[in-house]
Amino acid sequence: MNIVILAAGMGKRMQSALPKVLHPLAGKPLLSHVIDTARQLSPSTLCVIYGHGGEQVPQLLQAKDLSFAKQEPQLGTGHAVMQAVPQLDDNAPTLILYGDVPLTTAASLQRLLDIAGSDKLGILTVDLDNPTGYGRIVRENGTIKRIVEQKDASEQERAIREVNTGIIVAPTAKMKKWLAGLSNKNAQGEYYLTDIVASAVADGVEVVSAQPDKVWETHGVNSKVQLAELERVHQHNIANALLEQGVTLADPARIDVRGTLTCGRDVSIDVGCVFEGNVTLADGVRVDSYCVIHNTTVGAQTHIRPFSHFENAVVGEACIIGPYARLRPGTVLAEDVHIGNFVEVKNSEIAAHSKANHLTYIGDSTVGSRVNIGAGTITCNYDGVNKSRTIIEDDVFVGSATQLIAPIRVGKGSTIGAGTTLTKDAPADKLTVSRAKQITVEGWQRPVKIKK
Amino acid sequence: MNIVILAAGMGKRMQSALPKVLHPLAGKPLLSHVIDTARQLSPSTLCVIYGHGGEQVPQLLQAKDLSFAKQEPQLGTGHAVMQAVPQLDDNAPTLILYGDVPLTTAASLQRLLDIAGSDKLGILTVDLDNPTGYGRIVRENGTIKRIVEQKDASEQERAIREVNTGIIVAPTAKMKKWLAGLSNKNAQGEYYLTDIVASAVADGVEVVSAQPDKVWETHGVNSKVQLAELERVHQHNIANALLEQGVTLADPARIDVRGTLTCGRDVSIDVGCVFEGNVTLADGVRVDSYCVIHNTTVGAQTHIRPFSHFENAVVGEACIIGPYARLRPGTVLAEDVHIGNFVEVKNSEIAAHSKANHLTYIGDSTVGSRVNIGAGTITCNYDGVNKSRTIIEDDVFVGSATQLIAPIRVGKGSTIGAGTTLTKDAPADKLTVSRAKQITVEGWQRPVKIKK
Amino acid sequence: MNIVILAAGMGKRMQSALPKVLHPLAGKPLLSHVIDTARQLSPSTLCVIYGHGGEQVPQLLQAKDLSFAKQEPQLGTGHAVMQAVPQLDDNAPTLILYGDVPLTTAASLQRLLDIAGSDKLGILTVDLDNPTGYGRIVRENGTIKRIVEQKDASEQERAIREVNTGIIVAPTAKMKKWLAGLSNKNAQGEYYLTDIVASAVADGVEVVSAQPDKVWETHGVNSKVQLAELERVHQHNIANALLEQGVTLADPARIDVRGTLTCGRDVSIDVGCVFEGNVTLADGVRVDSYCVIHNTTVGAQTHIRPFSHFENAVVGEACIIGPYARLRPGTVLAEDVHIGNFVEVKNSEIAAHSKANHLTYIGDSTVGSRVNIGAGTITCNYDGVNKSRTIIEDDVFVGSATQLIAPIRVGKGSTIGAGTTLTKDAPADKLTVSRAKQITVEGWQRPVKIKK
Repeated sequence: MNIVILAAGMGKRMQSALPKVLHPLAGKPLLSHVIDTARQLSPSTLCVIYGHGGEQVPQLLQAKDLSFAKQEPQLGTGHAVMQAVPQLDDNAPTLILYGDVPLTTAASLQRLLDIAGSDKLGILTVDLDNPTGYGRIVRENGTIKRIVEQKDASEQERAIREVNTGIIVAPTAKMKKWLAGLSNKNAQGEYYLTDIVASAVADGVEVVSAQPDKVWETHGVNSKVQLAELERVHQHNIANALLEQGVTLADPARIDVRGTLTCGRDVSIDVGCVFEGNVTLADGVRVDSYCVIHNTTVGAQTHIRPFSHFENAVVGEACIIGPYARLRPGTVLAEDVHIGNFVEVKNSEIAAHSKANHLTYIGDSTVGSRVNIGAGTITCNYDGVNKSRTIIEDDVFVGSATQLIAPIRVGKGSTIGAGTTLTKDAPADKLTVSRAKQITVEGWQRPVKIKK
Repeated sequence: MNIVILAAGMGKRMQSALPKVLHPLAGKPLLSHVIDTARQLSPSTLCVIYGHGGEQVPQLLQAKDLSFAKQEPQLGTGHAVMQAVPQLDDNAPTLILYGDVPLTTAASLQRLLDIAGSDKLGILTVDLDNPTGYGRIVRENGTIKRIVEQKDASEQERAIREVNTGIIVAPTAKMKKWLAGLSNKNAQGEYYLTDIVASAVADGVEVVSAQPDKVWETHGVNSKVQLAELERVHQHNIANALLEQGVTLADPARIDVRGTLTCGRDVSIDVGCVFEGNVTLADGVRVDSYCVIHNTTVGAQTHIRPFSHFENAVVGEACIIGPYARLRPGTVLAEDVHIGNFVEVKNSEIAAHSKANHLTYIGDSTVGSRVNIGAGTITCNYDGVNKSRTIIEDDVFVGSATQLIAPIRVGKGSTIGAGTTLTKDAPADKLTVSRAKQITVEGWQRPVKIKK
Repeated sequence: MNIVILAAGMGKRMQSALPKVLHPLAGKPLLSHVIDTARQLSPSTLCVIYGHGGEQVPQLLQAKDLSFAKQEPQLGTGHAVMQAVPQLDDNAPTLILYGDVPLTTAASLQRLLDIAGSDKLGILTVDLDNPTGYGRIVRENGTIKRIVEQKDASEQERAIREVNTGIIVAPTAKMKKWLAGLSNKNAQGEYYLTDIVASAVADGVEVVSAQPDKVWETHGVNSKVQLAELERVHQHNIANALLEQGVTLADPARIDVRGTLTCGRDVSIDVGCVFEGNVTLADGVRVDSYCVIHNTTVGAQTHIRPFSHFENAVVGEACIIGPYARLRPGTVLAEDVHIGNFVEVKNSEIAAHSKANHLTYIGDSTVGSRVNIGAGTITCNYDGVNKSRTIIEDDVFVGSATQLIAPIRVGKGSTIGAGTTLTKDAPADKLTVSRAKQITVEGWQRPVKIKK
């Protein structure tokens, strides 16, 4: 099968410098949603038509299985499909999709393909309560005879609720002929793809139809209002799918998934969480309110407390993370690790049963097992030009408000006194400390308020 | 009165290891909602029927006024009630409730009990716009004659919109007789409680009905989708009740209360707040957006700024807390205390007019009045095995980035210099400091970028 | 034109110490919404009628173009308008508005004014699906003949769906006459403004009407439930206006704007953000989830990460701020400044290309360009009574966990070693450090658990 995706419209109503089809829905360009759906249908040819000003489209979305054709000038949908003609295999039908209609399901399209087979023209149609403005499907004895546009429709035809969605599948060789015969003698001076329906009927080719499961599968995006509406439809669908598979959601209207969220059994997600990229939550994971989690894997039974923020991290089993914990890229936590409030971890591995519960920065570090990192600890990993690593071996106790000036190694079982600036390696099993003498100043007077 | 709560269903569609009736709604198991409602009716017997795999039910919910009976195998609702028979007092009627129908109100049940009295069979019924699938209430001249199930209903009966909710009250001695006479000769081979309605009619016992105020009072939970729906109904009800009593809510659809939220006059709650357990907000308290508050009392006129997180704390009057303040269990703040951003307080009392506004950890401490705790202060309360207390007396000024190594006492009116590691008590009214000499290294060169 | 705003009702159902019209909608008192709308109509007289207990109304809202009159006792809407009579210019019509009906648009009112002209009585009416309880507009041959209240209406009149909103414009001299003729012989013993319609008809003055674009323009606030409903209507309108102008909103139901949010092109705002006061986001600004931004200007292409909190700040172009960044009043950031997690900035200017990415407090400081401020840095700007400034010149590298005791100057190009307490100025281009010697204690034993 050939699939052509029309993606040349700039989308003036979007009021953006970005071509319309590149605007994200659930974090992914509208067009990518359509391409991903198209791929589920295993097309032999998958051609995207882009337009003037849309050069970012082939730049950003290039892939082995995609071809691109530029439509310039843009003279209508029929003209757009003509740009793909040289790439279309006559021996398979051609399906026309739209880069700004992101939520059509592969199942609905497959139904259309099945009914059209190799020799019929198939139209995806939908019944609207208010069909005003759409092309009506005119049938005689149940057979589709033509599509009549709003402005050309008789009173009787305007009462028809079944409308054209624009998604069409056609036998390719005949379609090429019909396209070649299109006329642009109309108000806009454009070549309309819809006109091939009349050509098909004239040629004695049967015109059939299928309907999607839901009307929103055929909704297009022409404005930010419509983009926001479809975002909500999509998020509602995702939330519902999570609930159906047994995930507990405190409020299905307050979860955002932009990418793939894979959940084990007995996962519970509180209000306001945002998931981006590939996130995996194993059995029994509990995510509290207002967590933002990006490209992260979380092990079984781990509890993520409110206001946590993860990016490209790996979290082990039975960890307790947050509230207000930030795991940055390269964080790998083993099992039963505790990361507490106002703690940032970056590009560091922390082994099992270790804890950093308060006001700490762990960067470019390797932390052993059963390590306790006191409040206010800072790994000084950056000298202004280079980053260096901190190694903290098993069973270390790092006292509060300690600075570890990397590169440095803190030996197994050692203790670092609170307030220490560690500039050299600390030997194993001993107390290491840097500390100025505590003195009390006699006769000292508190400062007084300076009048201004 | 006797109350029997049927709670034996495992709830396969919940796709969980947890028995269905233990899934939380607003932080409390579904069954506990039903038990709490039942208790409002002051039953003499309150018996919960649990099933195979539901051993956690009696384990988790045991209470003096509750008895439990196990239904194994599970042969239908009638069979479930039979398990309670030995515990039921013949001199009082028996009300049958369901552990997965959490939101029936005591007022609706009382209405049913009142109309049924001691000698009639009472059914809680509800009128549905779409009654498909439910047992219809068949009346003749207004009198209930039988309940007909969907599959057995005539066209005319299917048009009946009044349906059986399953909640029933019956004279106990007669109910026992009717239960004993139930047959399981049906497709499922089960004993249906509903069949006692026919027995009652046959026995000449009048069958009466009452209706709940709202349809959702009769909704059951069989899936996470339904659980989420009832959670939203319940939260909507709670929000509405708060509004009705004069609380200002920025968005009633974005507040979650899981437990009891008690508010004084002129309390204002911004979007996205979550309240758990017993929370009390006194007159004039203002809670900004995205606060998570658990088991906490907040004094009058206190202002809680965004992203604050409290657990088991007591906050005084006219305090300013947050943004990003975390109060952990055992925090007790007196009046006019300020706790600012990135500050964690745990198991500590802070007296009036004291402030800790930035990046600080106060743990296991007693802080006096009018104390100023500088940014980056850390109480070092943990030596790896023991926790010790820090005492900071009235009028102390703790300079920034100070560590207080507990056990330690900072004397009244003393000043601790910035950057001090305080290892010994600081005397009152004096400046105490530990500080290394500041030196400038001549001829020092900045590090250069190492090529990798 | 004269405008009279009736604002005397205390609003008992609000259950508040605050007069009803002072309760905020989108952060601004209800009455201020009405006043602002009234101002768009350029009235020569703008008079607010307040009542007993409402003394805060003139106190809080006084302005040059406003006059106030007290209604005491409160004897109905007609009586309320009588209090303004001495201030009303007979040569211009008088428009009556309500301090608790906040969302009427100036466009709808202008339409009413236009149709009424200088000599007709104009009523703002609205068609309700359920008009029960409202005064019906009775017309004969299309002409308004009278308003009939619910209790006095015939069956036929009750079927009328067009109702009186109370908003009226009248020729002033005649209105004064009609007001003088009002009777209080009714159940409440009050003088009803509505009764002037009958007087107008009796006087042969034509009564005309206009309708608002939306029904909610005429909704009043009598309870916190209604306040919350109108808040949502208003926020929905604001979100829609932002979408229409091209702003991307992840969820229009989860943004709150309380004041004026001005956005450039290609601005994107994620879920849960709150904007207060005057906020300007320049082209390409991206605001991530759960940011709270108050009175702040943000430069083009700046990225604000989740959980950030700004008050009265100025942020330059191409900055990266957050997550968990707090910018307090007086923060001015130049271009390409990075402020990271758990960093607080107050009353400080930070020049281009400088960074403070972790756990830092910058207060009362002037920071140069290309400065790197390490994790855990604290400007000690407060000695308990006075605040002093910290000057950090261009190209300084401040090592982690450094305290800068103000007043202090850190010279251009200098480096401050990690863990330094800087008490004196640091010279340019050199390394300055204060550091105690690192020692290791031989034979030291870790503390053992004390039994309690």
